[in-house]
Amino acid sequence: MKDLEEDAARLLGDKRTEIDRIDRKLVELLAERKKLVREVAEVKIEHGLPIYLPGREDALIRERRKEAGTAGVSPDLVEDLLRRIIRESYQAEGTAGFKATVDPVPIVLVGGRGGIGKLFHRMFTNSGFTVRILEKDNWDQAEMLLRGAGLVMVGVPIALTLEVIDRLAGKLERHCILADVTSIKTAPLAKMMEIHQGPVLGLHPMFGPDTHILAKQVIVYCPGRDPEAYNWLLQQFRIWGILLLEADPREHDHMMGIIQAMRHFETFVYGVHLYEENADLEKILTFSSPIYRLELGMIGRLFAQDPNLYADIIFSSQEGKAIIKRYLKRFSKLRTLLDKEDKAGFTELFHRTAQWFGSFADQFLEESSRLIEKADEHKRPKQS
Amino acid sequence: MKDLEEDAARLLGDKRTEIDRIDRKLVELLAERKKLVREVAEVKIEHGLPIYLPGREDALIRERRKEAGTAGVSPDLVEDLLRRIIRESYQAEGTAGFKATVDPVPIVLVGGRGGIGKLFHRMFTNSGFTVRILEKDNWDQAEMLLRGAGLVMVGVPIALTLEVIDRLAGKLERHCILADVTSIKTAPLAKMMEIHQGPVLGLHPMFGPDTHILAKQVIVYCPGRDPEAYNWLLQQFRIWGILLLEADPREHDHMMGIIQAMRHFETFVYGVHLYEENADLEKILTFSSPIYRLELGMIGRLFAQDPNLYADIIFSSQEGKAIIKRYLKRFSKLRTLLDKEDKAGFTELFHRTAQWFGSFADQFLEESSRLIEKADEHKRPKQS
Repeated sequence: MKDLEEDAARLLGDKRTEIDRIDRKLVELLAERKKLVREVAEVKIEHGLPIYLPGREDALIRERRKEAGTAGVSPDLVEDLLRRIIRESYQAEGTAGFKATVDPVPIVLVGGRGGIGKLFHRMFTNSGFTVRILEKDNWDQAEMLLRGAGLVMVGVPIALTLEVIDRLAGKLERHCILADVTSIKTAPLAKMMEIHQGPVLGLHPMFGPDTHILAKQVIVYCPGRDPEAYNWLLQQFRIWGILLLEADPREHDHMMGIIQAMRHFETFVYGVHLYEENADLEKILTFSSPIYRLELGMIGRLFAQDPNLYADIIFSSQEGKAIIKRYLKRFSKLRTLLDKEDKAGFTELFHRTAQWFGSFADQFLEESSRLIEKADEHKRPKQS
Repeated sequence: MKDLEEDAARLLGDKRTEIDRIDRKLVELLAERKKLVREVAEVKIEHGLPIYLPGREDALIRERRKEAGTAGVSPDLVEDLLRRIIRESYQAEGTAGFKATVDPVPIVLVGGRGGIGKLFHRMFTNSGFTVRILEKDNWDQAEMLLRGAGLVMVGVPIALTLEVIDRLAGKLERHCILADVTSIKTAPLAKMMEIHQGPVLGLHPMFGPDTHILAKQVIVYCPGRDPEAYNWLLQQFRIWGILLLEADPREHDHMMGIIQAMRHFETFVYGVHLYEENADLEKILTFSSPIYRLELGMIGRLFAQDPNLYADIIFSSQEGKAIIKRYLKRFSKLRTLLDKEDKAGFTELFHRTAQWFGSFADQFLEESSRLIEKADEHKRPKQS
């Protein structure tokens, strides 16, 4: 018996040495690949080609999936690995320089020292543009800073946006593009159209200031005036790898009421609730299934961020406030099911809602399951 | 100019061919690795060794991270890839046979045709045990099926658990282990202790019936009676790769009130809310940031599952119901901040909650950010 165990240990040791050798080769391949990707990026930058080419990426993955199948390896595994490797490549490419799509005009970032301002500052600078910052402490130099600007981009807290745009009135040259990056669009766009006669464009970057890789990130844009004049800017975003989505400003704001104001408020309430319950987070985590851990993560992350950002989004959305009111009414009504022990009512409504979700429910289940599996990869719970 | 573009195209083409060659090598390495892992699994199974060895996994990753650093490759990239590859290995190992930790005794699964019952059925069978199913339609054969059983495991809807345990009274042999897998623990454990004089064990698997890989999954266990007699069962779980967590049944139930009942109910309300708003899901997805898409996924996935499961969890938790009541009160009170336009009150409470979250907020932010990046890898939005 003892001998057998020793044999097993030796055999396992040998196999593991071989596995280690393979994994070391993997690291070598990654180093080789990284070098090639950098060379590709240099060519792309030199010729002003977009960083993200969906066609190339899909074709590459399709081919390797096929080969995986033939080699008896899971195609999903290969796809997951390649997507992770490709994400890393974007990071490498994204920190390099970019080609400008026009003769670099001076760009003024109003509120350029904020999080999203800094991000655009870096990207425009990396693309060869001269960037000037207009902030509350240098408004006295506004006219000088705005002189000759080809693009003025407003990125200040929502509550200040209209006022700040107003202060730009009469200071912009006719050909200058006026754009904003506020997360609501109707009012800022109207205000920009009012105070400026030249090209106008409303933007809503759908990513946070801490985003490192712009490839595949989305910017929603609402056309204002003179698309031909601002087209180079959209093209510049594409070169950074960004995906563009055109939207009507009113429709956009309606969606944001549902998506942002309502959901952020709910998350806020849930966090306050945990705090007032004085829940033991350490213990909760121990007892959490992967899915709840993820949900808790969503709540906790809110409180690691700037309250003013969230207050702005919630308080500035009239539609959001109305939706929150209706949500509360529903919560209150549905809670009476519990008092009445009305399980039948619960399951009946559950079925109706499931039917309404239709195929989305399954899609969401699949998507989130895949993500939970990924979360599990990194999990390391204490073992008793 | 034209020539330059052609040059660039050719150069890109060459580089891409080289990248493809590397990626193909990657697929080959994976095939080789898979073969070795299978051989390791065979040795492990033969000798009844656990599938999941945290030490080995951590050491392997630590070594490759170091080598990555030396080779100029991101250590995080290498770790992510290896964890993904290792997850795949568990899958391969998990579908193979396992060694039984005792002379295989007959096992009776009460409710064995349910989701979690099927999972245990498969695992026990793969480990060499004889499994008998006791379901509502063959209760007339209960005495015969229970004869000689070494383990009886109850896995029925919560609402039926106590009643079903009661029906086992007087039918179990003294040496037989009686266990349940209900998601509440106090009442079922008390009931099992009452009707059986032999070994008793309460279990709560913290994973769903659709879990494919048991490695690293958690089972909470509440000791009932005679640990020496049921120890082989815990050891069997370990061989499957499961992590065990001992808990007091009352503490467990308190946590579940906070974690499951409250959160599931809130998710339920949010889904009904979207349904009654008749929100355009397709459009919402288009406008969603990665984080909201993830949150929407959490809601949608609920409705792809069995309403009775959720009704059971919510309605059976008295503590959960009380917590939901307090949550509603807080929501209602906090909503008045919006009516009063009390941004200051909002941010003040936000700060206090953030303080209470402490370092957890940052931890959650980091964890969820990493996950969102992973979600982004697979995103492919429509481009306008």
